[in-house]
Amino acid sequence: MKKYTSAYDVADVNELVKEALHLKENPYNYKSLGENKTLGLVFLNPSLRTRLSTQIAGNNLGMNVMVMNLDKEGWALETQDGAIMNGTTVEHIKEAAAVMGQYCDIIGIRSFPKLQDRDEDYSEDLLNKFISYAKVPVVSLESATRHPLQSLADLVTITEQKPAGKKPKVVLTWAPHVKSIPQCVANSFAEWMQQADVELVITNPEGYDLADEFTKGATVLHNQDEALKDADFVYVKNWSSYEQYGKVLTDGEGWMMNNEKLALTNNAKVMHCLPVRRNVELSDEILDGPNSLVLEQANNRTYAAQAVLKRMLEAL
Amino acid sequence: MKKYTSAYDVADVNELVKEALHLKENPYNYKSLGENKTLGLVFLNPSLRTRLSTQIAGNNLGMNVMVMNLDKEGWALETQDGAIMNGTTVEHIKEAAAVMGQYCDIIGIRSFPKLQDRDEDYSEDLLNKFISYAKVPVVSLESATRHPLQSLADLVTITEQKPAGKKPKVVLTWAPHVKSIPQCVANSFAEWMQQADVELVITNPEGYDLADEFTKGATVLHNQDEALKDADFVYVKNWSSYEQYGKVLTDGEGWMMNNEKLALTNNAKVMHCLPVRRNVELSDEILDGPNSLVLEQANNRTYAAQAVLKRMLEAL
Amino acid sequence: MKKYTSAYDVADVNELVKEALHLKENPYNYKSLGENKTLGLVFLNPSLRTRLSTQIAGNNLGMNVMVMNLDKEGWALETQDGAIMNGTTVEHIKEAAAVMGQYCDIIGIRSFPKLQDRDEDYSEDLLNKFISYAKVPVVSLESATRHPLQSLADLVTITEQKPAGKKPKVVLTWAPHVKSIPQCVANSFAEWMQQADVELVITNPEGYDLADEFTKGATVLHNQDEALKDADFVYVKNWSSYEQYGKVLTDGEGWMMNNEKLALTNNAKVMHCLPVRRNVELSDEILDGPNSLVLEQANNRTYAAQAVLKRMLEAL
Repeated sequence: MKKYTSAYDVADVNELVKEALHLKENPYNYKSLGENKTLGLVFLNPSLRTRLSTQIAGNNLGMNVMVMNLDKEGWALETQDGAIMNGTTVEHIKEAAAVMGQYCDIIGIRSFPKLQDRDEDYSEDLLNKFISYAKVPVVSLESATRHPLQSLADLVTITEQKPAGKKPKVVLTWAPHVKSIPQCVANSFAEWMQQADVELVITNPEGYDLADEFTKGATVLHNQDEALKDADFVYVKNWSSYEQYGKVLTDGEGWMMNNEKLALTNNAKVMHCLPVRRNVELSDEILDGPNSLVLEQANNRTYAAQAVLKRMLEAL
Repeated sequence: MKKYTSAYDVADVNELVKEALHLKENPYNYKSLGENKTLGLVFLNPSLRTRLSTQIAGNNLGMNVMVMNLDKEGWALETQDGAIMNGTTVEHIKEAAAVMGQYCDIIGIRSFPKLQDRDEDYSEDLLNKFISYAKVPVVSLESATRHPLQSLADLVTITEQKPAGKKPKVVLTWAPHVKSIPQCVANSFAEWMQQADVELVITNPEGYDLADEFTKGATVLHNQDEALKDADFVYVKNWSSYEQYGKVLTDGEGWMMNNEKLALTNNAKVMHCLPVRRNVELSDEILDGPNSLVLEQANNRTYAAQAVLKRMLEAL
Repeated sequence: MKKYTSAYDVADVNELVKEALHLKENPYNYKSLGENKTLGLVFLNPSLRTRLSTQIAGNNLGMNVMVMNLDKEGWALETQDGAIMNGTTVEHIKEAAAVMGQYCDIIGIRSFPKLQDRDEDYSEDLLNKFISYAKVPVVSLESATRHPLQSLADLVTITEQKPAGKKPKVVLTWAPHVKSIPQCVANSFAEWMQQADVELVITNPEGYDLADEFTKGATVLHNQDEALKDADFVYVKNWSSYEQYGKVLTDGEGWMMNNEKLALTNNAKVMHCLPVRRNVELSDEILDGPNSLVLEQANNRTYAAQAVLKRMLEAL
């Protein structure tokens, strides 16, 4: 694998899930694979789970791991071709990525969207340029439009927890939040579920439909109660509007997932990528109750990252 | 050992001192103990000695060590049960601690008091909740009321330096400072000295008495000169008022430890946890002279941390 | 080697270049040398290449590497002897350096000049005090007046690329920039080139002559076109005025290195230490063209650092 930025970079997502589950059982079996190999983790935005789980994944494979908070320890990157750099950007991504590519065998990079210009964000300009100039395999640690390590961990979790002998109904539901949040986790989850053997229903208020490229093939409903009916898994997540890009259109009263909503489902397992705003997106009763999978998801982040890194190491 | 937050978490402090001294002689003898184990160090406040010495302690035991500056690289934690998280806190400690507990085999955490609400600080709410939700062994890297790795290093240093055949007189003296400082180092030192075979005298201006739970059994004097008489060790430290909580009540003129004060002692060794405000808390002549133990204390931080981590690894 | 702060700390720069080239071929041959040794990297200023390449150099030699962003994670250091520390500095360099020297076997430190007081900057007070108090070997990761790991990497690159059978002409040329930049890279490059078997010409606008100690023996020209004639290597770098210390005296119109200038040379290879302001210091056409060595220079940073660390480890 030369890059890992979306489900489309993976030949067979189910095989990758199997690999992750195998690594969960045998995390230290491949320590020689990463010997004398360096994993560089570049953060242009904050991270907790992604940073720690990917560090451990690298360690488990015997790699040296270096973390670089480019936003705090480094400097602003220029991405425009031909820019006359007489402003605030200190280094062009051409040099920054190429240099890090020389130092590292594999690079992970996180870069959030600015949520101001949809075309710019959805072009994934920074990520694509970084990959192109770095020349080494690159793992997205969350980009403007997707969060593929999260989605792989989510699919691993669903695979572990799904009822036997039945195609599970998975509902991705919008939830309220207090600020403008990217669509990437929701986009990415939808993208991955469409590669998996599940029935996907997406529910959100009007004005919050995700981009067609992510929703095509799924059922989209604006009535949450209708969507939740008989769900086996409910994935709760806020996102800002794609149509009125980056805007918060409603406070979403009545959209918080709670036990009353849970009663509509098939005793569904409830998922969230974390961090979660308690009692805004999801009620305490759910998060502290037996139906929550949020910690299992976070735990599976390690093995999702390890499966991807293992594939990349094998292809070096 | 499942947690290390105070002297009361240690069955026998003298055995732990012996362990630390043994590790100081043989720092790399237990490298297999930490193989494939991860130590997470979580900082909600700045750190120099604690961070570096604990990192080295983990490395000496063969652990992978991950440092997480949660204040700078992460986000604000909610600690209130039942909070409706529509404000500035981004993640509840329930999730944050539980997730880090899944990723790490042992966690160290530093969290300073806010010095505004005494009951809140002395409840050690954040530390206790973190331990409860993390589920793995937790080492305090300094909390609202105590700094137990510092105190263990202090007791190791006193053990190395104490005169033979005599119960040493140890004086903990308040010193001036320019800002409001927590009581935790002083509290903790008093707590540990009461478990050790020393005579403890505490001296501070009126209004600066520490909480009873830490001073009971010790002699408390408001006359520094009287307290210093015949001291074998003088531990110098500023703290803000416990009674008028967090307040600075005096500029402490005449309380700075210097050679004139040293002349009152039994040629005492002088200690400080660092960082020290030179010529405010302690004079240059003492810090640069033969009686200072401050660097020995800092050096022993590594072996104090290593002794605690070794115990925790053995009990995993 | 006990310290590495300038070319004068190296007995024979050509031998050190050979060592670096040997390590570039065999980066993992000396992993046992650094076993149970700790490299501490202390940054008082931002860093990308230096941080990553020196981390990898330490890892390649089997060392544990700890990064400490003292400016962000730590606190302000006092350097004045006898200071009454009742202001904003939290710890004296006497203690900070001594403690880090106890924790680490080798320390790297980066500290930029303030560009306000020339005598203060050129005294290298902070670096010299740090070395004196740390007591362990210290590597400069760029100081007020020099950047010796960069210069070694530059000499390694020139050695790899130089035309056979000819003493190459190396031109160090000033370039425009948008802010006030230290002289250290230029100083250091000049210092190292004078130890190497090259003809050194320095060109800059009037008012930008470097200090005599760095330029003596080299040809200094204020006419860039004349200087570039028949150059085999052109090293492009901005620096602020040494004479009118720290000042920007001109916008440097006409001094940017581009293909028109390149035509004056002997098809020169073009060098820059990075980060580079594209189309201000150097044109896109050069950086994206076949004559640029900037990535080779950055890549050689790893082996320059490794050569220095290897020498220090051997002398421990």
